[in-house]
Amino acid sequence: MTKPLNVALVGYGFMGKAHANAYRKVGHFFPELEHRPQLTCLCARDPDKAEKFAETWGVESVESDWRRVVERDDIDVIDICSPNNTHHDLAIAAAEAGKWVLCEKPLAMSTAEAEAMTAAVEKAAVPNMVWFNYRRVPAIALARQLVDEGRTGRPFHYRATYLQDWTIAPDLPQGGQTLWRLDVDVAGSGVTGDLLAHSIDTAMWLNGPIEQVVAATETFVKERVHQATGNAQPVGIDDACMFLARFANGSMGTFESTRYARGRKNYNTFELNGADGSVHFDLEDPQYLDFFEHKLPGTDQKVADHLTGWRRIHATNFEHPYMDHWWVPGCTIGYEHTFINALADFLAGVASSTPAQPDFRCALQTQKVCDAVLKSAHTGEWVTTGVEAE
Amino acid sequence: MTKPLNVALVGYGFMGKAHANAYRKVGHFFPELEHRPQLTCLCARDPDKAEKFAETWGVESVESDWRRVVERDDIDVIDICSPNNTHHDLAIAAAEAGKWVLCEKPLAMSTAEAEAMTAAVEKAAVPNMVWFNYRRVPAIALARQLVDEGRTGRPFHYRATYLQDWTIAPDLPQGGQTLWRLDVDVAGSGVTGDLLAHSIDTAMWLNGPIEQVVAATETFVKERVHQATGNAQPVGIDDACMFLARFANGSMGTFESTRYARGRKNYNTFELNGADGSVHFDLEDPQYLDFFEHKLPGTDQKVADHLTGWRRIHATNFEHPYMDHWWVPGCTIGYEHTFINALADFLAGVASSTPAQPDFRCALQTQKVCDAVLKSAHTGEWVTTGVEAE
Amino acid sequence: MTKPLNVALVGYGFMGKAHANAYRKVGHFFPELEHRPQLTCLCARDPDKAEKFAETWGVESVESDWRRVVERDDIDVIDICSPNNTHHDLAIAAAEAGKWVLCEKPLAMSTAEAEAMTAAVEKAAVPNMVWFNYRRVPAIALARQLVDEGRTGRPFHYRATYLQDWTIAPDLPQGGQTLWRLDVDVAGSGVTGDLLAHSIDTAMWLNGPIEQVVAATETFVKERVHQATGNAQPVGIDDACMFLARFANGSMGTFESTRYARGRKNYNTFELNGADGSVHFDLEDPQYLDFFEHKLPGTDQKVADHLTGWRRIHATNFEHPYMDHWWVPGCTIGYEHTFINALADFLAGVASSTPAQPDFRCALQTQKVCDAVLKSAHTGEWVTTGVEAE
Amino acid sequence: MTKPLNVALVGYGFMGKAHANAYRKVGHFFPELEHRPQLTCLCARDPDKAEKFAETWGVESVESDWRRVVERDDIDVIDICSPNNTHHDLAIAAAEAGKWVLCEKPLAMSTAEAEAMTAAVEKAAVPNMVWFNYRRVPAIALARQLVDEGRTGRPFHYRATYLQDWTIAPDLPQGGQTLWRLDVDVAGSGVTGDLLAHSIDTAMWLNGPIEQVVAATETFVKERVHQATGNAQPVGIDDACMFLARFANGSMGTFESTRYARGRKNYNTFELNGADGSVHFDLEDPQYLDFFEHKLPGTDQKVADHLTGWRRIHATNFEHPYMDHWWVPGCTIGYEHTFINALADFLAGVASSTPAQPDFRCALQTQKVCDAVLKSAHTGEWVTTGVEAE
Repeated sequence: MTKPLNVALVGYGFMGKAHANAYRKVGHFFPELEHRPQLTCLCARDPDKAEKFAETWGVESVESDWRRVVERDDIDVIDICSPNNTHHDLAIAAAEAGKWVLCEKPLAMSTAEAEAMTAAVEKAAVPNMVWFNYRRVPAIALARQLVDEGRTGRPFHYRATYLQDWTIAPDLPQGGQTLWRLDVDVAGSGVTGDLLAHSIDTAMWLNGPIEQVVAATETFVKERVHQATGNAQPVGIDDACMFLARFANGSMGTFESTRYARGRKNYNTFELNGADGSVHFDLEDPQYLDFFEHKLPGTDQKVADHLTGWRRIHATNFEHPYMDHWWVPGCTIGYEHTFINALADFLAGVASSTPAQPDFRCALQTQKVCDAVLKSAHTGEWVTTGVEAE
Repeated sequence: MTKPLNVALVGYGFMGKAHANAYRKVGHFFPELEHRPQLTCLCARDPDKAEKFAETWGVESVESDWRRVVERDDIDVIDICSPNNTHHDLAIAAAEAGKWVLCEKPLAMSTAEAEAMTAAVEKAAVPNMVWFNYRRVPAIALARQLVDEGRTGRPFHYRATYLQDWTIAPDLPQGGQTLWRLDVDVAGSGVTGDLLAHSIDTAMWLNGPIEQVVAATETFVKERVHQATGNAQPVGIDDACMFLARFANGSMGTFESTRYARGRKNYNTFELNGADGSVHFDLEDPQYLDFFEHKLPGTDQKVADHLTGWRRIHATNFEHPYMDHWWVPGCTIGYEHTFINALADFLAGVASSTPAQPDFRCALQTQKVCDAVLKSAHTGEWVTTGVEAE
Repeated sequence: MTKPLNVALVGYGFMGKAHANAYRKVGHFFPELEHRPQLTCLCARDPDKAEKFAETWGVESVESDWRRVVERDDIDVIDICSPNNTHHDLAIAAAEAGKWVLCEKPLAMSTAEAEAMTAAVEKAAVPNMVWFNYRRVPAIALARQLVDEGRTGRPFHYRATYLQDWTIAPDLPQGGQTLWRLDVDVAGSGVTGDLLAHSIDTAMWLNGPIEQVVAATETFVKERVHQATGNAQPVGIDDACMFLARFANGSMGTFESTRYARGRKNYNTFELNGADGSVHFDLEDPQYLDFFEHKLPGTDQKVADHLTGWRRIHATNFEHPYMDHWWVPGCTIGYEHTFINALADFLAGVASSTPAQPDFRCALQTQKVCDAVLKSAHTGEWVTTGVEAE
Repeated sequence: MTKPLNVALVGYGFMGKAHANAYRKVGHFFPELEHRPQLTCLCARDPDKAEKFAETWGVESVESDWRRVVERDDIDVIDICSPNNTHHDLAIAAAEAGKWVLCEKPLAMSTAEAEAMTAAVEKAAVPNMVWFNYRRVPAIALARQLVDEGRTGRPFHYRATYLQDWTIAPDLPQGGQTLWRLDVDVAGSGVTGDLLAHSIDTAMWLNGPIEQVVAATETFVKERVHQATGNAQPVGIDDACMFLARFANGSMGTFESTRYARGRKNYNTFELNGADGSVHFDLEDPQYLDFFEHKLPGTDQKVADHLTGWRRIHATNFEHPYMDHWWVPGCTIGYEHTFINALADFLAGVASSTPAQPDFRCALQTQKVCDAVLKSAHTGEWVTTGVEAE
């Protein structure tokens, strides 16, 4: 027997579309789930656009004030995909109202906010998750599986980049509904919270806590017109951020993110080098995990020297994570499926009382690293992150 | 104003799922379309499985006899995704009943069947389309655009492969619900109708009519157990097929398909070499079109010799075919989206009275090439296809 | 103790340079060889160019008539890298004079010529080899090793292309010293003898005899100016050639070659698909062999389904063929090294009385396939090649 | 008229072989050069090995003490390819004796040494060069050409890695003739001087001076047996090094090097992102330069949005740097050719009085960055490099 689950979506931008699609599709591809999400409510400020979104996606009702949503008894879940500066108040109110809370990343504007939010959901004991959707790329989940199977061995190096190029033009405005990610008051930070948060979440999922960082940031375009006011104003975000890291397991890390890497669109890559094997991933080719196998796990047996090489695994076999829910080997899935897989995991986690990760507490650790990175960029010194051991 | 469109889906296998998903999603991503498809009816033989499918996908009613579906007044569209040997009768009956008819490929078991079906939909003047979905891969549509823009110039060569490896195991059965593609009585042919039909459709779309072919086929596993009876029986399909072609425009073609190419899963590739440029595509990396530009169209200007190279176009920009309906640059779509894009084109074509291609008449040409290929494989001689000039 | 070996080089064109380099370098990288080739004589028609070449490469003497070379007692080896129409007379005279004979490919203008040449070297019992240098690309030799180790299993498919684009311009002349490959009277054929001969040699080395072929050729530019006369005259060569093949082992083959594939420079590729594994190679990326491993040789153990993928072997390890003679892992070698490796094999073969392949008899088999291909292109029918079983 | 040039090679290890090959071949492929290098003398400590090397490579004489070589009047050039701790004394003595001096990288054990060496060659006014051979990879030289042509525009980012995996095994010894690179007393540093020196040289050649760095190093294996003594002793070198950089032109840089990146053999990569274009290179695929073109230089014209992509330039056209001296388009050269190209540039530079770079003064700048990196790794603070503006 399936149960309907009434979801209120807060925000209708790019992420609102991605989440709405996830709620619409999850039951078709994961029919074994107990809960059947319904798009019960959309909360957004602009009523015309909200109505249009609701019509397109079949959302039953529209609200303009999130406080009203929190109060509604017919809502089970509040899904926050509004800009970063709204996360804190919304999540805490939702938790206090006993709602399940899902929140887009980055969890918060600061570690302090994230701690308060984590405390709130834990106090309320409500199911909660942060949408670090890339953990649900099958190839990335496969990377985690290979690490867990001991196929990489003692880790030496981790390197990650998240490169884009969409803000190079100096006449691109900042702020407003579509460009709030460039407005520091709304976004909190630039690429650190938006892109590196993904890289850090993946890194710590695959390679454990980051203990120390040293960082540098840059703002290449110093002033941009604000979309709302039409006035030029200083750019407060970090256009680019790079940092070195020390992991708790003794390995070294390099991280870099920018929106000024001409030709890189969604170049979210990582590579983990261990004594027994390495994995490499690139989000622009999301169907692949590259795996270099040196030694078979749990043995002293090495791959024959004339056979070694990077194996390009087309992660579309039924045996790959999530892929038995989709099509057949060789048929790729895409960006949007990471949200559907994440939602399926979340719902399965609730049903089985084994919360899907990253929950708020897990995402709080990523927030700590982001804050340490920004602090180091400011001071020029190595900063200890304070990330909790798992 | 939008209009509901009542669709009856015939078949619930792999293709049924792909089509159901398309009907469910098309309105979300192409909200400008006038018609809003409803999954009104599912027609399938096994009532339990049909009920389950209908529940998962929210299909309103279930029928077990397609004749009943054709008779129902509340059905506007009949979409045939049942096995090949059902296409002919179903399509003709649907057309005669005035339904719009969509049909999975290959259109028919033979050219004779395809001609009768084409005559039926044309006589009834009903909208019709065959699901050669790969035309709607953005990168393939981009290839057509580049050809149309004159970027490839005088064509010399076309080569296509469609390689898979899922039937190598001799203990794989044939026939029954899931393996009817291996049963010649149901499928009509093996890789020729299943895979090469795609390659031929794409080839003629990009490079015009194929005039002559010489072919060879092979059946590597001579006998397989039938899934239904449990008895070993001869394998009647072509496991593999290769052919040489002469196009009407004077260029040469090579084509090959198999289900015995170890390591190739959905390796549907093509390359077109023209005097001024070349394009290359591989369905396992569907986000890319490789383009070699030699001369700028309409000029004598060549690309500087030190800059020439194959440009790997990540076809996810808003300016690429279909991509303004999906996510943002760098975010890939996958296999299922080709069906949604195709459906959107079909509906837009009906609304604007400019029928989307390939309609039945167009798919009939592909059928003629398939028949010529099989005939040549039998006789060992070059065979003229009889394809109509566009 | 090492022995000097006096070599006479016939021809100083592109191949002359490649061979001269091989004689000069082989002792540096294969110091274990017994013979130390000396560039004793260069034979060429144009005395000025010959002198210049001899000076650059340190060749001791120059002759303008090959008959004189054959008569010279101080010459041990005659290496034929002059145009194809000179091979027959030269090789037979050299063999009759008791010289070792090396000959550029294709061995001859026809099977009849090749048979006479083979008879001559066998009657004289002189060491002989044909420069199918690509067998000595480490990655190709590795492919052979993997086949021999049983890593590919029962073969189903072989496909090869050899694509170039340097003759597209219609104002490119034919004939003369640098463009004799376009002149049918000198070259014998176009891409069939020049490029497909390589593909066929590799194919039969890896996959055994080709029994039957059906082919088509095309001459896209019908008339070109002759470089020597300045007059336009018909083009007699095949600009492009494609053929289907049946191998003796039951597998199917497709082959294609052209000089009209815009963007392909030296795109000599092959792929072999067997039940247990596949290999793929591309001469533009000669450092790699792509290997898909399905089943471990001699066992029933399959690679785990979540680990399967194409392994890109960077064939520069010490354990790869020839590579212990060159640099260190990760350091590539290039085009010219295939000639040096071939020469080393030839000399080692003479020293150990285990003749390196392909010798004339082996190259004769490739000639038979070339002739069958050209015949089929003429008649439109399948042709039996008459290739001897190994 | 050509002039003989008497070269004394100091060292016969891996680099000795690479240099000897360069001297042997340069005249064959760059016959236009005025000087004809002769391998006049080999200087090395082990007389048996030296004799063997001399015999293989045709070196005329052997010396065991470099002081004797410096004194010999018949020597024009001293080429230092002995371990790093010998560079300083040898180079200064050679310069004082009026010899031309070529030196393997890194130039010295420290900036202080490098300054003294630079002063010596400048005082003596002798031609000098440091073998940063990778500048002579055609694709890297092409990268410089594209930057010079304005095709990348305002630089934002530079990132480089140089990854290898050959020292992971803890039982690999350090020191002695073949493993002196692991012995800090002989090598001076680990990957910083050996690998990052290459990355830094390339970076500053392409993107100008590095002003500030912050770095971290690691020694993963703390103790290794010394090859000479057989005793375990602490490992003093940096096994891995990563650093962040600020360039004088305002762009940001990340650098990383290690010998613990399983699966990476000679993974020397860089990427430069500018407002108008980007370039990317990987030494394991040395035949390619990847180029993303956004805007045509000197214009406001952007590449059409549907055509943008990374162009994979197979840098083997005659129009690519150095390639008119080698084979034909599509035919690759390899590792050893970088030394030959470098030598040709050096000799041409002497002949034309336009010294080839990097000379000692240029290499001194790289040394400064290396020292700053090691200092920062020690202190944890940002360090100013003191690199001179060009």
